[in-house]
Amino acid sequence: MSKRLVIALGGNALGKSPKEQLSLVETTASTIVDLIEEGYDVVIGHGNGPQVGMVNLAFEFSHKDGGGLPAMPFPECGAMTQGYIGYHLQQAVQREMARRGINKPCAAVVTQVVVDKNDKAFDNPTKPVGMFYSKDEADAIVAQTGYTFVEDAGRGYRRVVPSPIPVKIVELPVVEQLVDLHTVVITVGGGGIPVVENGPGNYEGVAAVIDKDRASAKLALDIKADMLVILTAVDQVAINFGKPDQKNLDRITLEQARQYIKEGHFAPGSMLPKIESCISFVEATKSGSALITSLEKAREALKGNTGTLITRD
Amino acid sequence: MSKRLVIALGGNALGKSPKEQLSLVETTASTIVDLIEEGYDVVIGHGNGPQVGMVNLAFEFSHKDGGGLPAMPFPECGAMTQGYIGYHLQQAVQREMARRGINKPCAAVVTQVVVDKNDKAFDNPTKPVGMFYSKDEADAIVAQTGYTFVEDAGRGYRRVVPSPIPVKIVELPVVEQLVDLHTVVITVGGGGIPVVENGPGNYEGVAAVIDKDRASAKLALDIKADMLVILTAVDQVAINFGKPDQKNLDRITLEQARQYIKEGHFAPGSMLPKIESCISFVEATKSGSALITSLEKAREALKGNTGTLITRD
Repeated sequence: MSKRLVIALGGNALGKSPKEQLSLVETTASTIVDLIEEGYDVVIGHGNGPQVGMVNLAFEFSHKDGGGLPAMPFPECGAMTQGYIGYHLQQAVQREMARRGINKPCAAVVTQVVVDKNDKAFDNPTKPVGMFYSKDEADAIVAQTGYTFVEDAGRGYRRVVPSPIPVKIVELPVVEQLVDLHTVVITVGGGGIPVVENGPGNYEGVAAVIDKDRASAKLALDIKADMLVILTAVDQVAINFGKPDQKNLDRITLEQARQYIKEGHFAPGSMLPKIESCISFVEATKSGSALITSLEKAREALKGNTGTLITRD
Repeated sequence: MSKRLVIALGGNALGKSPKEQLSLVETTASTIVDLIEEGYDVVIGHGNGPQVGMVNLAFEFSHKDGGGLPAMPFPECGAMTQGYIGYHLQQAVQREMARRGINKPCAAVVTQVVVDKNDKAFDNPTKPVGMFYSKDEADAIVAQTGYTFVEDAGRGYRRVVPSPIPVKIVELPVVEQLVDLHTVVITVGGGGIPVVENGPGNYEGVAAVIDKDRASAKLALDIKADMLVILTAVDQVAINFGKPDQKNLDRITLEQARQYIKEGHFAPGSMLPKIESCISFVEATKSGSALITSLEKAREALKGNTGTLITRD
């Protein structure tokens, strides 16, 4: 039986425009198809930070400044990015597989992810999205919509949304059906379209951003993946990062990972959620491991030559 | 074995804003789940005319009028609408199935559809997309973008893009895998993201709109559906439509359908492509039939009580 990998791709690695994205997915696809060529069944999760910001801005701007278009709620913007990124990614993976003579289907599945409406993240929105506004504009929007705004270092006021924990992947059965048939699936785009469950099967979108690494870890757990692979800007995780005594880590246990967190080695909003996502996956599985590395080094890292492997013990 | 239906939904029936769409998909889902309850395996194709126009305009406006955003090519806009419409539709179908105690997965698959780059449609754009403009507004946009506009029946000016014939559904293998497992699939949204094939498996987006009825007919043929169901604004197809001697049609053969086309009974851009899509499906299958009816009457029409059924003979 093929080993299953869940790969979590950063939204920042996909560029800031359709032209950039179309070019960058080529490199991404090359790495993904490397892993497929190594015999793995690959499921791809991806971020959408810059992309959902772009869609959100386009509608906000057109709504506010006379384009006569409707306001576009945040979950719908996220759904749009799943189509937009999924299209480019699947096209690039299909092209690269065809080039190498690999005959496997690949497609993106529109995916909702349930969050708990009582998640304490809703009391404390932290993720900035959309345009900068003056204080007066922001106050007017708050009065109309109840959105939360924060001042951003002199650049003006910006909306923030909560980042709750993923609880359930709604389209998991569909993803499982496809992975069982060795299809390359793109899912939980942008961490998934955030929804709450108002009753069994009754989902409703909420303005939030689910961390894509946490959503990918949940996905890896749910589809019984052998490994969660988080691709980021560095080849290996380090302690004392950026200091003279920086030490890159080849392999760490859950206990070591927790100890390093306690010692404050990992930056919140950067390496910390990645390590936490790896821990949540590894501790919930019997034999699963997690790997953090760069897109460029993924193939080598899977052979054990670089990257940081997180294992139970 | 369950009978397979491909349902083609009109994009106009999905409303002009996310709020409208969220409300309208409830009714749509109710009909779709009616058919699922009747024991059919249902695959859903849908239009995206108003929606892709909206996305396109949002980016156009923000790109041009100072939002500082990149221009968004038409295929990418289409991909976004697959996420946007797919999300609302799958959520509504999931909710309605849960309410009725039906346990079936449902999800939208991001879907590319290949067109021939030499399709003569590229020389003659005909498909209206987006909003209506005054002549002055349209002239200004044409001057800025080079788009083609046409006057639409007194309602104003509208952008037109080419509408080539669908040749191949790229993600067909994925759709087939899911339908074989009785999953409710939403696919070929907006007729599919239009692409050309530059070599085996090497797809590239093109600015076009594939007629959603033609794409659904192609889909029905490819997945060996028993019936293609085209949902539209009327309960039945009519000859002498809107005249004193209007006659609604219960059942017609391919030969009759062709005769009525020759006699000019069906309006181009309206009923004609629907009839042609039905013909293309029915004539290519041994026992498949096609049904044209309204969303409201679909369940009754499938029982033979209304609608217009097109059969081989």
